[in-house]
Amino acid sequence: MRTHFCGLIDERLIGQTVTLCGWADVARDLGGLCFIDLRDHEGIVQVVAEPADVEGNDRVIATASDVGYEDCLRVTGQVRRRESVNNKIPTGQVEVVATAIEVLNKAEPLPFHAHENPGEDIRLKYRYLDLRTADMQRKMRTRTKLVRALRRWLDERDFQDIETPILTKATPEGARDFLVPARMHPGEFYALPQSPQLFKQILMVAGFDRYYQIARCFRDEALRADRQLEFTQLDMEFAWVQESDVQDTAEAMIRDAFREVMDVDLAQPFPRMTWAEAMRRFGSDKPDLRIAMEFTDIAELVKDCEFKVFTDWANDAKGRVVALCVPGGATLSRKQIDEVAAHAAKYGAKGLAWMKVTDPTLGREGVNSPIAKFLDDATLTAILQATAASAGDLLLFGAGAWNTASDFMGAVRLKVGKDLGLVREGWAPLWVTDFPMFEWDEDAQRHVALHHPFTAPAVDDVESLRANAHTAVSRGYDMVLNGNEIGGGSIRIHRPAMQAAVFELLGIDADEQLAKFGFLLDALKYGAPPHGGIAFGIDRIAALMAGTESIRDVIAFPKTTGAQCMMTGAPSPIADEQLAEIHIAVRPKK
Amino acid sequence: MRTHFCGLIDERLIGQTVTLCGWADVARDLGGLCFIDLRDHEGIVQVVAEPADVEGNDRVIATASDVGYEDCLRVTGQVRRRESVNNKIPTGQVEVVATAIEVLNKAEPLPFHAHENPGEDIRLKYRYLDLRTADMQRKMRTRTKLVRALRRWLDERDFQDIETPILTKATPEGARDFLVPARMHPGEFYALPQSPQLFKQILMVAGFDRYYQIARCFRDEALRADRQLEFTQLDMEFAWVQESDVQDTAEAMIRDAFREVMDVDLAQPFPRMTWAEAMRRFGSDKPDLRIAMEFTDIAELVKDCEFKVFTDWANDAKGRVVALCVPGGATLSRKQIDEVAAHAAKYGAKGLAWMKVTDPTLGREGVNSPIAKFLDDATLTAILQATAASAGDLLLFGAGAWNTASDFMGAVRLKVGKDLGLVREGWAPLWVTDFPMFEWDEDAQRHVALHHPFTAPAVDDVESLRANAHTAVSRGYDMVLNGNEIGGGSIRIHRPAMQAAVFELLGIDADEQLAKFGFLLDALKYGAPPHGGIAFGIDRIAALMAGTESIRDVIAFPKTTGAQCMMTGAPSPIADEQLAEIHIAVRPKK
Repeated sequence: MRTHFCGLIDERLIGQTVTLCGWADVARDLGGLCFIDLRDHEGIVQVVAEPADVEGNDRVIATASDVGYEDCLRVTGQVRRRESVNNKIPTGQVEVVATAIEVLNKAEPLPFHAHENPGEDIRLKYRYLDLRTADMQRKMRTRTKLVRALRRWLDERDFQDIETPILTKATPEGARDFLVPARMHPGEFYALPQSPQLFKQILMVAGFDRYYQIARCFRDEALRADRQLEFTQLDMEFAWVQESDVQDTAEAMIRDAFREVMDVDLAQPFPRMTWAEAMRRFGSDKPDLRIAMEFTDIAELVKDCEFKVFTDWANDAKGRVVALCVPGGATLSRKQIDEVAAHAAKYGAKGLAWMKVTDPTLGREGVNSPIAKFLDDATLTAILQATAASAGDLLLFGAGAWNTASDFMGAVRLKVGKDLGLVREGWAPLWVTDFPMFEWDEDAQRHVALHHPFTAPAVDDVESLRANAHTAVSRGYDMVLNGNEIGGGSIRIHRPAMQAAVFELLGIDADEQLAKFGFLLDALKYGAPPHGGIAFGIDRIAALMAGTESIRDVIAFPKTTGAQCMMTGAPSPIADEQLAEIHIAVRPKK
Repeated sequence: MRTHFCGLIDERLIGQTVTLCGWADVARDLGGLCFIDLRDHEGIVQVVAEPADVEGNDRVIATASDVGYEDCLRVTGQVRRRESVNNKIPTGQVEVVATAIEVLNKAEPLPFHAHENPGEDIRLKYRYLDLRTADMQRKMRTRTKLVRALRRWLDERDFQDIETPILTKATPEGARDFLVPARMHPGEFYALPQSPQLFKQILMVAGFDRYYQIARCFRDEALRADRQLEFTQLDMEFAWVQESDVQDTAEAMIRDAFREVMDVDLAQPFPRMTWAEAMRRFGSDKPDLRIAMEFTDIAELVKDCEFKVFTDWANDAKGRVVALCVPGGATLSRKQIDEVAAHAAKYGAKGLAWMKVTDPTLGREGVNSPIAKFLDDATLTAILQATAASAGDLLLFGAGAWNTASDFMGAVRLKVGKDLGLVREGWAPLWVTDFPMFEWDEDAQRHVALHHPFTAPAVDDVESLRANAHTAVSRGYDMVLNGNEIGGGSIRIHRPAMQAAVFELLGIDADEQLAKFGFLLDALKYGAPPHGGIAFGIDRIAALMAGTESIRDVIAFPKTTGAQCMMTGAPSPIADEQLAEIHIAVRPKK
C-alpha cells in the first residue's frame, strides 16, 4: 500500500514519487493551500496540497481541506525541497507534494489530545490513542529491544527456550494463586503459576542443560502502587552448576543488554556484597549505590550516654543504633526533617533524632541538636568523628531492633538521597549474596523461607542445617540495579532428603509435602543433577531503561491498581448458566 | 563443574584430562573393571574404571562398581583411544579412564525404562524421565529451533514482539472461555484469551506497524484426540496492508524456517487455491496435496441413471455426486471397502458405492461393482472415461448434499490415500483463499462466521454485503501443509460501520455489540488503519517437523485428553475458605 515510511523521507528522494500511509497529525488549510503532517511509526513528514494546472488537483485540495486529526490517509506525491526548513524533525528538509490523497478511514473527534494530560484512567481507556504518541512508542520500543537483546544472547549460547504450562497445580502459597475452575473435573481447579519455578527445576532433571523462557507469571494480591496481576519474567535455569556459573552468565547477559539497548557499559565485574553487609551499610537488601551515604554504627559510642532510647538499644544484643551523615543536609528546615521522620515512622521508627553540624571542630558549640544535651562532650566528639561529619552536614539517628532500625534508616537514606539530589547519574548494579536461609515468624512461631523453599542451604548436610537453622545462610543471590531487585535466584536443593528436611523446618509435614510437592520429591529421587538459576523482572528492567517510574508504561495493556482493564472492562460478570457449566456459583454477598 | 560435554569427547582430546558431568546410562561391572556409559544432553561417552598402580584407584573402582542407572556423576579422567571401537556413537573412538568419580546424586530404581514402552500415562507421570530420552530431546529441540528461526526472521524485519494480557475479558464465544474469579471484584471474572485477536488489532490502531507474539492461547472444550487446553500461536499483525503483503511475508518466513530447521526448500511460490476449488477437487478446506487423487464430479453423467441415490442428488441443485479413482485400489477386499464406508459414515455418508476396474476398455465386462446393473453402458463408459480409470483401479462414489458429500469423500480420500501408501514423501504447502464469509446455521436460523467476526468481506460497502450475505466471500486465507491448517488469517474490518454490519448479520444486536465489543468499535472510530494478519499453530508445525503425530511430543508438560497433568496432579480440589476469598463456591452435585 505504500512505497516508503513517512519518517524516513529525506533529501535523497527529492524528485521521486512516493506513496505514504499514515495518520494526519496536524492539518492546516491556508485557503486553497493545505498542509498535512503525516505520521507513521517512523516519524512525520509534511504533505502539501496546492493549486496547480495539473488535472485532478482540485479534488486533492478538496480532500486535503477536509482532513481532521488522526484520519488514516494514503498519499501519493513528489518529494521536493522545502522552502521553510523545519530542523526539529529529521524529514524537515523536504515535503511531499500530493497528487492523490485517499482517506482510508475517517477519525471521529478524539476524546482527548495527548498534550492535554487527561489522567491515567482516560489514557488507559483509550489505550490505542495513548500508545500512538511518540513517547509511548519509544518506551514500548525499548522493551522490545530489551527482550530481543536478551533472547539473542541466550540463543547464541544455546539456551533452550521451553514453554511451561499456564494451567498448573495450586501451590502452598496458594492464597496468591489465581484459580481456574476445571470444566471436566467438577469441584477442581487449575492455578495460574506464580512462576515456572518447579517446572524449570523439573526440566533440569529432564536433561535439558540450559533453559530460558520469557514467562508470564501471576500473583493475585492487593496491588501495591507499581504491581500488576500478571508480570513477565526472564526465567533461566542451568544444570550441573554452582553459583559462579549462573552469576557470571547472568551478569554478562545483562551487561550485553545494556550495551545493546542503552549503549552503556555497566561495571565489570558488578560489585558484590553479602546480605549482612548490605543491611549493615545501607539498611537494605537492595541498596541503591548511586547514593554514597552509608550508615555508621554508634552503639558502642552511646551505650553509656543519657539518651535513653540510645542506651536501651545500644545495650540490647538485638538492638542497633545508627547514624547517617547527610552531606549538606543542615539546610533542611525543621518541617522538612519532620517529613523525613514521618517517612521513617512508616517503616517502624518511633522517632528520628537529628543533629545539624555547623563546625565539627567546635564540638558542642558546632552543632545544633535537641539531643546534644544528653550527650557528654566525649561522646559528641566521638560521633562527629565516627561519621566524619563536615560543616553543613546533617546527622540523622535511628535506634531500634536490629532489623527495624536498619529498615527505617534504609528508607530514610533513600528519601533524603532523592530529596537532596544526592543520587548520582548512571547505573549502579551489584550482587547481593549469602541471604539468611530462614526468617523467624514470631506470630506463627515457625521459620519461613526468605527466598523460596527450593533454595539450597550453604551447608550440604541435613544435620548441620537442622542444628543451625536460625543462622543458616542460603545459596541465594539477587541482582540489584539502582535500588531495584531486578533479578533473584539460587542454587536449588537437588537431593530429596535435604528438600524434605527444609520442608520440615518450614513446618510442612510429610502429608502436605506429598500432596503438594510429591512430584518434585519424586523427581529428585531419579537422578536430579545439581542445578540453579535466576529470574529477571522484565517489566522493571524495561521501565528502568525507558526512564519511567511506572511499569505500566512498558506494558501494552496494563491493569489499574484496582485490577481492572479500563479499555476492555475486564473483569466482568458472567451469566449463572455459564458458571453452572464449570460447576461454580458466585457466593451471595454477606 | 565440568570441562567438556560427554557427547563431544573425540580423538582431538586424546591424552587430555577432562571433567564430565552426566547420568549413568549403563554401568557394567566386569569384576574389577567397570564400564559406565556417561550421558549428557550432547550424547554418550564410555568411562572406564580399571585397576592400576595409581593411588586412590581402588576407591574409583569401588565407586564405579556401585553405580546404578541414572545416577548423577562427575567424572575426571584421561581421554584415550578405545580398543573396541563403537561406530554407533560419535564418541565411539575414545574412552575416558577415570581418576575420580563423584556421585552427585544417587538415583533410586526407576519406575520404568524407556525401552519398556510403559504407556503414555506413566510416561506423563514421570515426564522428566521420558524427556530425558534421546528421542524426546530431539523432538523438543526441534521445537526450540523452529521458534528460534521464526523469531530471528521476524526480528530482522523489525516486527515488534509485544505481549498481550492473559487475564482478559470474556468473549462472545464465551462457552469456551476459561474463567478466573476476580478477588477484588466479587462476582466478576477474567477470561483467558482464546487468541490475542482483538489486542493485536488494537495494537495496529495504536500505531505499531508490524507486531508478532509467540502467544499462549486457551480453549476450554472437550479435548479431541490431539488438542490441548492451552496451545501456542505465532500471532502476527500488519498495519497498512492487503492480502498479498501478509501472505508473501508469512510464506517467506515459513520457507525460511523449513530451510533452517529441516534443510528443506518448500515450493516457491506455494500453490494457491480458492476454498471452492479445494472443496470441489479434494473435499477439504485443507487438502493434503501429497495425495494425487482428485474428485470427479459425475452428476451430469448419472442424472438419468437408475441408481436412485445418484439421480436424487444429481438432480438437486444443492446435491453433489462424486467419483474418486483410487490407483491400484482394486486389490482392496470387500471387508476393507466396508471399513472405508464405515469411515465415510462418520462424516455423514449414507453409503459408499464402489467399482473395481479390471479393464476399462471392456466397459461392463471390465468392471466389478454392485451398482453396475443400475448404469447403462453409455453411462458406465462415460464414468470410466471421466475418471480416467485404469486396470486395477477402484472407483468410489459418494452422493449427498454438496457439503456433506464433499466432506465424507474428502475423508475417504485421506483414509484410502494413507492405507494404500499413496501419500508421497515430502512437504506440500498451499494457500487456501476466498472462504465464504458466513455459514448458515440451520438450527439457529442465522449466519455464523466461518473465520471470526472481524474478518473483512471482499466487498467494501455495507449495502452489497447485506444484499449478498449468503454468497459473500471473505478476505480470509489459510496456510495448509500436508493436510494440516498450520496458519490462518485475514484482512480485518477497519471501519466501524462495516464491523457493526457484520455483527448484525451474525445476530449480535446493538446492545450486545456495545457490551462485548464496545472498545473495538470505539478504536475503529479514532483512526484505525487498514490491517491484517495471520496466526500459526506452533505445536502443530513443531510436531510435523519432528515427525510425530502427537503435539504432546513437542510440549514439555502436556495435559491428557482428560485435561489433567499426570505429573503434578492438576486440576485439584481447593479448600472452601480459599474459594470464599474469591467469592465463589463449588456447586453441589446434582
